Amino acid sequence: MSDIIKDSIKTIPDYPKPGIQFRDVTSLMQNPVAFSATIDRFAAQYQNSGITAIVGTEARGFIFGAPLAYKMNVPFIPVRKPGKLPRDVISQAYVLEYGEDILELHTDALSADDKVLMVDDLLATGGTIEATTKLIRKLGAHVEDACFVVNLPELGGEKRLTNLSVNSFYLTEFEGE
Amino acid sequence: MSDIIKDSIKTIPDYPKPGIQFRDVTSLMQNPVAFSATIDRFAAQYQNSGITAIVGTEARGFIFGAPLAYKMNVPFIPVRKPGKLPRDVISQAYVLEYGEDILELHTDALSADDKVLMVDDLLATGGTIEATTKLIRKLGAHVEDACFVVNLPELGGEKRLTNLSVNSFYLTEFEGE
Repeated sequence: MSDIIKDSIKTIPDYPKPGIQFRDVTSLMQNPVAFSATIDRFAAQYQNSGITAIVGTEARGFIFGAPLAYKMNVPFIPVRKPGKLPRDVISQAYVLEYGEDILELHTDALSADDKVLMVDDLLATGGTIEATTKLIRKLGAHVEDACFVVNLPELGGEKRLTNLSVNSFYLTEFEGE
Repeated sequence: MSDIIKDSIKTIPDYPKPGIQFRDVTSLMQNPVAFSATIDRFAAQYQNSGITAIVGTEARGFIFGAPLAYKMNVPFIPVRKPGKLPRDVISQAYVLEYGEDILELHTDALSADDKVLMVDDLLATGGTIEATTKLIRKLGAHVEDACFVVNLPELGGEKRLTNLSVNSFYLTEFEGE
């Protein structure tokens, strides 16, 4: 069966380095039928879940999270790199392949009453979503789920999130192809 | 008269440095009534304009551009910092307060048949939107308009875009307040 979401994602061989098959969601954004299907499938999945806020992580998480927040009529909360958010923030370091990076969240963005859906394009090792989960929980809010356009199961992100008691939902996946 | 869009934008004094009044659109995103009004007012403005693509510039341009592309059912095309787009790109340098930066656009993202709407959060000096205009025109596409949530008229961006024959549309503005 044809899958418009999976079919619209181009694979770039050997990017950003030899041996990596890069799954390119910009080709999905260029296809309005596929992009609408993506947002509408997320919205359908969570329509009766009582979600009170969408958190999207810089920068591709903004491209899927903001339309979903618009569609679901809930706040959109950005998680950003250091120095980008102007009000009081909390920070969370996370490990990258080489070195580490930091993500920030506005302190007043969420409260203990919130039931949060995290949105990102791709679940790989899960490092940024783990850091995002920690930020949300530092504010006392409840992480309901993490949703992704693409899962790369061989990189272990889903298991990493399960270990944090976070459920993953995704629309398509690519195994060693 | 109360203006939900203007009223939802917080002003952060002396950020990122003394003397700057930072207009913070993250407080608008946190308010779903104001965020929906923003996207719907842009869509109403351009509903009969024949726009074939929305271009949003990293990173806040993604947060307004992607929902508008979803609403208008046209492609969303990201303009990004160097090294972030995986396929063939064209590049455009632009001048910042200190030094310069570069923006990139996928070569296959637009063609001569396209009528493009650029979207960003804030029109200040207009430097990034000027660079984005040049990228779109390098691909032969037509720049229809640039739309912004906020205009800061004292910083001269609107005049700079007029000099490029680009019309600016914005929802609210802040003068030396």
